[in-house]
Amino acid sequence: MLPTILVLNGPNLNLLGSREPEVYGVATLADIESHCRRRADALGLALDFRQSNHEGELVTWIQQARGRCRALILNAAAYTHTSIAILDALNALDMPVIEVHLSNIFRREAFRHHSWVSGAAHGVLCGFGAFGYELALEAAARLIAAGDATR
Amino acid sequence: MLPTILVLNGPNLNLLGSREPEVYGVATLADIESHCRRRADALGLALDFRQSNHEGELVTWIQQARGRCRALILNAAAYTHTSIAILDALNALDMPVIEVHLSNIFRREAFRHHSWVSGAAHGVLCGFGAFGYELALEAAARLIAAGDATR
Amino acid sequence: MLPTILVLNGPNLNLLGSREPEVYGVATLADIESHCRRRADALGLALDFRQSNHEGELVTWIQQARGRCRALILNAAAYTHTSIAILDALNALDMPVIEVHLSNIFRREAFRHHSWVSGAAHGVLCGFGAFGYELALEAAARLIAAGDATR
Amino acid sequence: MLPTILVLNGPNLNLLGSREPEVYGVATLADIESHCRRRADALGLALDFRQSNHEGELVTWIQQARGRCRALILNAAAYTHTSIAILDALNALDMPVIEVHLSNIFRREAFRHHSWVSGAAHGVLCGFGAFGYELALEAAARLIAAGDATR
Amino acid sequence: MLPTILVLNGPNLNLLGSREPEVYGVATLADIESHCRRRADALGLALDFRQSNHEGELVTWIQQARGRCRALILNAAAYTHTSIAILDALNALDMPVIEVHLSNIFRREAFRHHSWVSGAAHGVLCGFGAFGYELALEAAARLIAAGDATR
Amino acid sequence: MLPTILVLNGPNLNLLGSREPEVYGVATLADIESHCRRRADALGLALDFRQSNHEGELVTWIQQARGRCRALILNAAAYTHTSIAILDALNALDMPVIEVHLSNIFRREAFRHHSWVSGAAHGVLCGFGAFGYELALEAAARLIAAGDATR
Amino acid sequence: MLPTILVLNGPNLNLLGSREPEVYGVATLADIESHCRRRADALGLALDFRQSNHEGELVTWIQQARGRCRALILNAAAYTHTSIAILDALNALDMPVIEVHLSNIFRREAFRHHSWVSGAAHGVLCGFGAFGYELALEAAARLIAAGDATR
Amino acid sequence: MLPTILVLNGPNLNLLGSREPEVYGVATLADIESHCRRRADALGLALDFRQSNHEGELVTWIQQARGRCRALILNAAAYTHTSIAILDALNALDMPVIEVHLSNIFRREAFRHHSWVSGAAHGVLCGFGAFGYELALEAAARLIAAGDATR
Amino acid sequence: MLPTILVLNGPNLNLLGSREPEVYGVATLADIESHCRRRADALGLALDFRQSNHEGELVTWIQQARGRCRALILNAAAYTHTSIAILDALNALDMPVIEVHLSNIFRREAFRHHSWVSGAAHGVLCGFGAFGYELALEAAARLIAAGDATR
Amino acid sequence: MLPTILVLNGPNLNLLGSREPEVYGVATLADIESHCRRRADALGLALDFRQSNHEGELVTWIQQARGRCRALILNAAAYTHTSIAILDALNALDMPVIEVHLSNIFRREAFRHHSWVSGAAHGVLCGFGAFGYELALEAAARLIAAGDATR
Amino acid sequence: MLPTILVLNGPNLNLLGSREPEVYGVATLADIESHCRRRADALGLALDFRQSNHEGELVTWIQQARGRCRALILNAAAYTHTSIAILDALNALDMPVIEVHLSNIFRREAFRHHSWVSGAAHGVLCGFGAFGYELALEAAARLIAAGDATR
Amino acid sequence: MLPTILVLNGPNLNLLGSREPEVYGVATLADIESHCRRRADALGLALDFRQSNHEGELVTWIQQARGRCRALILNAAAYTHTSIAILDALNALDMPVIEVHLSNIFRREAFRHHSWVSGAAHGVLCGFGAFGYELALEAAARLIAAGDATR
Repeated sequence: MLPTILVLNGPNLNLLGSREPEVYGVATLADIESHCRRRADALGLALDFRQSNHEGELVTWIQQARGRCRALILNAAAYTHTSIAILDALNALDMPVIEVHLSNIFRREAFRHHSWVSGAAHGVLCGFGAFGYELALEAAARLIAAGDATR
Repeated sequence: MLPTILVLNGPNLNLLGSREPEVYGVATLADIESHCRRRADALGLALDFRQSNHEGELVTWIQQARGRCRALILNAAAYTHTSIAILDALNALDMPVIEVHLSNIFRREAFRHHSWVSGAAHGVLCGFGAFGYELALEAAARLIAAGDATR
Repeated sequence: MLPTILVLNGPNLNLLGSREPEVYGVATLADIESHCRRRADALGLALDFRQSNHEGELVTWIQQARGRCRALILNAAAYTHTSIAILDALNALDMPVIEVHLSNIFRREAFRHHSWVSGAAHGVLCGFGAFGYELALEAAARLIAAGDATR
Repeated sequence: MLPTILVLNGPNLNLLGSREPEVYGVATLADIESHCRRRADALGLALDFRQSNHEGELVTWIQQARGRCRALILNAAAYTHTSIAILDALNALDMPVIEVHLSNIFRREAFRHHSWVSGAAHGVLCGFGAFGYELALEAAARLIAAGDATR
Repeated sequence: MLPTILVLNGPNLNLLGSREPEVYGVATLADIESHCRRRADALGLALDFRQSNHEGELVTWIQQARGRCRALILNAAAYTHTSIAILDALNALDMPVIEVHLSNIFRREAFRHHSWVSGAAHGVLCGFGAFGYELALEAAARLIAAGDATR
Repeated sequence: MLPTILVLNGPNLNLLGSREPEVYGVATLADIESHCRRRADALGLALDFRQSNHEGELVTWIQQARGRCRALILNAAAYTHTSIAILDALNALDMPVIEVHLSNIFRREAFRHHSWVSGAAHGVLCGFGAFGYELALEAAARLIAAGDATR
Repeated sequence: MLPTILVLNGPNLNLLGSREPEVYGVATLADIESHCRRRADALGLALDFRQSNHEGELVTWIQQARGRCRALILNAAAYTHTSIAILDALNALDMPVIEVHLSNIFRREAFRHHSWVSGAAHGVLCGFGAFGYELALEAAARLIAAGDATR
Repeated sequence: MLPTILVLNGPNLNLLGSREPEVYGVATLADIESHCRRRADALGLALDFRQSNHEGELVTWIQQARGRCRALILNAAAYTHTSIAILDALNALDMPVIEVHLSNIFRREAFRHHSWVSGAAHGVLCGFGAFGYELALEAAARLIAAGDATR
Repeated sequence: MLPTILVLNGPNLNLLGSREPEVYGVATLADIESHCRRRADALGLALDFRQSNHEGELVTWIQQARGRCRALILNAAAYTHTSIAILDALNALDMPVIEVHLSNIFRREAFRHHSWVSGAAHGVLCGFGAFGYELALEAAARLIAAGDATR
Repeated sequence: MLPTILVLNGPNLNLLGSREPEVYGVATLADIESHCRRRADALGLALDFRQSNHEGELVTWIQQARGRCRALILNAAAYTHTSIAILDALNALDMPVIEVHLSNIFRREAFRHHSWVSGAAHGVLCGFGAFGYELALEAAARLIAAGDATR
Repeated sequence: MLPTILVLNGPNLNLLGSREPEVYGVATLADIESHCRRRADALGLALDFRQSNHEGELVTWIQQARGRCRALILNAAAYTHTSIAILDALNALDMPVIEVHLSNIFRREAFRHHSWVSGAAHGVLCGFGAFGYELALEAAARLIAAGDATR
Repeated sequence: MLPTILVLNGPNLNLLGSREPEVYGVATLADIESHCRRRADALGLALDFRQSNHEGELVTWIQQARGRCRALILNAAAYTHTSIAILDALNALDMPVIEVHLSNIFRREAFRHHSWVSGAAHGVLCGFGAFGYELALEAAARLIAAGDATR
């Protein structure tokens, strides 16, 4: 059975492609998912790709990854900057977490420069648009291969 | 068909009338809704009036306003001060947003002085109690009439 | 005799229409005054409409409203952010004060986000351009009708 | 009929026993619930014991306690530090609120030192692990006995 | 000829007696002036007692004290907290300056705790109500007697 | 021989009962001591109950607890917020420390929200009035029983 | 029997006259005491004049003033800026407190600008040197005469 | 007709020559004006040279420069650090503004390091004493010659 | 001719492999360079790989990349947090800049959380160790392929 | 022999003309040097004009000016905001230092508003583009003529 | 007679050797005293070596050093960070003060980085353990020899 | 072979003796070096004594100490307050580091109170002038003797 990567997307990412394309690009979330599936196939990984506008649902999904997935790729969107509940869920997770953002959050408003997720992430990637998810998958494959599940 | 105004109410506003009446007044949320309906009728507007305690549900409702409503009147209550997710949803919305608060938030605790909503709102109204919703409707009618849907 | 509403305008508002129209709109202060007069007539209110570039003169005019007017609509412009003298004058006033700004001050520079006026105002209105004065008049009428002269 | 105590547990507390046991101990939430039931029986109290990862659900449960419960014991976990919505719900509640934390939050990261809950709580207890819930029940019994339902 | 003491009063002090008597007391500014005159007579001092709502006028009066007066007693009211122009005028003055406030400004809002005047004053007196002016006169008499005109 | 609990009370707690009863309650320190003695007897504990207005004396008493007592219950009152010397003494102590406050310090002035004691305490209890000492004794008994003398 | 005024002097004031005379003047503490005694006699007041380097001793003396003295004149020296214990003792005192400093603390280092004493004082006097104590006595006499023992 | 340069001087600059000469030099404002006139003649410029202690008057003069002058040289003195009203007036002005200070404000007190004027100025000059006005005139001549009236 | 990627390494990176391996891993800089060369070959890219301890030399190398290279991969190490000179050099560069760090800088000391580089970077990558350089190369290849040389 | 003026230019100023011309203008550093030489000739001054990207080299050049030059004109560019080493070198220099910036640094990012250089400069000039160097030369000539070599 | 050096030790230093040996080492205060005596003998100095947990006692001892001792070596321990009373006592002392700490306080908690003592000390030594006292004695001997009693 | 101590001196220390002698004393760097050599001889130590104005060169010299020296004495001068690159180099060094400053940096400007070096130093010495280097050598000898090369 292939190792599964959980890819979680936070609030408003369901709007991708229509919302502020000059910031987030024209790819929809479905486009990103299919790019990810192609790359996951090439890397020998299974994919569980989800989106939610609810902080609590994201917390629950992170909790449920235990024992079922091998790595988490997380774009927590706005909750990146406000959710300690997600941080706590990540702290309880025993697998690599890779934080992804479509835009370079450090070139945007100051309140987007702080991430609660980063403190519990193995690595962080931002500014590469939809392609950043693919880089994250490559990193996840590498970490799993190296048996590097300890953060 | 009449242009529809979405009126969204955030957490704990379902308690209006019973909760801290010296701060929020004695009108219930149902009272406010019926005042709004009367004023909307007079202005030739349809009304979609809702309340939720869930940040994620408010985000989803804001997203769904696109193409369906002509303006948003938002009293985000406590989420005013904590929700970047709502700010992002508003930033993706192509219609006037009017921020309303029952009390004058600037005469209350310091943590209520900052609003994430204001940064994405066309205008802000606070301190006029339930009547503030009616003023907001009048402003919305004006903005729609003026074809002023660009913020 | 009709109840009188004092409408005070702070520094540089005499330039309206020519100064930064992309921020403040194209209506002149005279335009705003005539809109206000029409609305005041409709509401059965008399109007005392003034402008000054002098902080001290605004303080004096606020003091003189006592016993002569029933409500104050105040756009203190730049003094909004710097004048404790105006705040003290408002604190000594026993009638509703409604703070108005043409632009949404919360979408502008950070130093415009703090208002000394708000702490002594019954309600606050901003971002509705010249129309905001009319909404303020409607609110003032309502407050006088309700005998709500206590802040 | 026995007076009912509502015991609410916030996000990630459903993981207790497995998550970071060096911080939170080895007792599961079910263990804590049964300790609480035993102590409640001894004190002549009924118990309504719940957990949620959703801020909005916690808000709703707090609202519903009115008229149904006599005291609230609240471990809001991560929402302790971020939720003004919960603070507002507590402010509308007319019964003693006792804040509990398993760990001594003041010996942990600085962002865990501020609690929005404390401002609306009758008393605060932290650092006593699962036993802290029992102390909270004893305090609740005492407050009810003393007819001290006013905060 | 008697040495003259200039007593300057800042904005809104002309309202004394009517404005917030629980903060400022019931004595009017005229009452304070006559108390001062009586005390000045007893101390062998002449008095020049004035009030203005204009920062610029206070600056001018301070400038004009040079060569004409022997000491300045200043209650700058709201300008205490905002006027660097008054500070500069005081720095150019070669006589003792005594700062007076009716209320204890350190028991009021935080923004009243900082005084630009204090940095250029010989001494500061606050919280003694109208009687504080008399103490200031006594201090001024002492300083003049001691030939202590250097700050 | 019974295990001894040292209960230390900081400055002004000797005034209890007369000083600001709306904040601290009507029980005197002698009342609290006798409540504690009764509870200690029931729990099989000896009590050493003291009060001092001197920071240095409290430091010395904490030092002397080593080898003589099994737990420390500390209400450092005002020194809670200013004494690093007490923190250092606690850091050198090899037994459980339980911090107690009569009032909920988080509902009082901001300067009372920070406690130097908390950083060296096993647990913290506040807002339960005199009863809080009894809860602290119960916690101490539990910790001793569990052989939990390591903080 | 004459009403007694307690005059308390904090740490290092026993050095007056020798320590930094350019800041504190050349009068010794004994000189100040004898000036005070002369003025107290003239005002019909008894005097209890003390100095201590110990925070705890000052706290105790403040506590003991209850029922024995009619007003407190306090120069807490360095403890002005660090002692919440003294603030608490003052808050428990039911008589006028007058804060005195020899130098104008607002013209010295920034850390001397904040006073914990001011928040509990009836009035504040600084910068008048030894003569400030006499002004404070005059104020105390006035407050006692006016029966104004409520702060 | 010669292009006119408006040179505005803020509060207390009328004292130049007598006030703190070690900071501001010995030249009087009249001296500076005559230096400026000589330099303006040489550069083919007309001069309108004024001083006011009133913030409001400075605002009005800045407003009146429109259409009448080609550049503004502004030494706002103390209002540099406190006047948003002057900033707003400058923002409405369509000609080069050159900020001048006699002293190097960055070597003085920290509160003199921030200038509201700088944000609306073409260039800033400080520390060159009276000669700085002449440099500013040369810069103004250059900017007018270059037709560089856009800031 | 192959497009050239400049890979710049800042101070102390020449120590890699020996310095704090628990933070930076055991790979030497030569190891990283050879990994990069292999990956660059596979992607059809030429490589210019350098290290310097001198801020000025890094600035010069960045300047010289213009017209000679197609993308810059920059691990500025300690200068990340202190060098505005490097930021300015990057701002003058018309090609994609990818910021890389071996460790997750957001899990380290607070002073490492701010990067001057990020404000001028297309994307940021951290926490992936030596493999992060390879991901950066892949991203660079993608950006060049997409003709995306505009930041 | 002519008095020599040292003109030092900091990092990235060698890029002038190509780098961000909308901020820095189109003149190259060579253009500025030749403008300066012409003006220096007219003023009877010799010129030593240099640029470096190295903080240490700028420090050394400043040290070497002693005894060899009569004034220093310094545009430290990015090091303006970060180099205390340059400040220390300037503090050891016994000649006038004139700080120049091409752009008005106060209209740019906040981190460019603070200058370490200003604290050791005789005067500051910014926002006049290349012409600012000529004004600085004129000021230097004046200062030398006046024998004003003491800062 | 030998010149006497006063060596003062603050709160909790009487615990040395037993308290947190990984921070403070295993030497007791008696050990340190005997090391000091040996070194003092070698240097021809007499020693007055004391410890107190009382801030007030340390203040008194510092005062009494005047005329009796030639230098003060002070390890104020926790009072280093909180005592302005000790700072004032040091400011009144006319002999060299050498501040000593056993541990390097800059590698410990942030609140230990600020020392009130440093502002009145001739020199500061930390991190050398018990040996630091000997270095301080050597420095004191040097300062006395050089007749350098002015700070 | 004698153990070698590397003594590094940062920017502007080559000016010692001429630069601000009231702050840094009259000894030149050569004087300090010869004092150090004499003391090193006495202690049986070899000396490598250097100075640089370049941050990068200091970093390189620190790196090169590995395996060649037994201890580092570092006076980083201005880079003390700005260089994280030096901190990183120190963190990679496996020998005692002793930080020295000629002046007591805590009695100077606030920006000199923070040292990046201290966080990686074994001990810190400041305020003892040139003699401080000799004390540092004595401390280094002691640390080497004690085999205490672990920081």
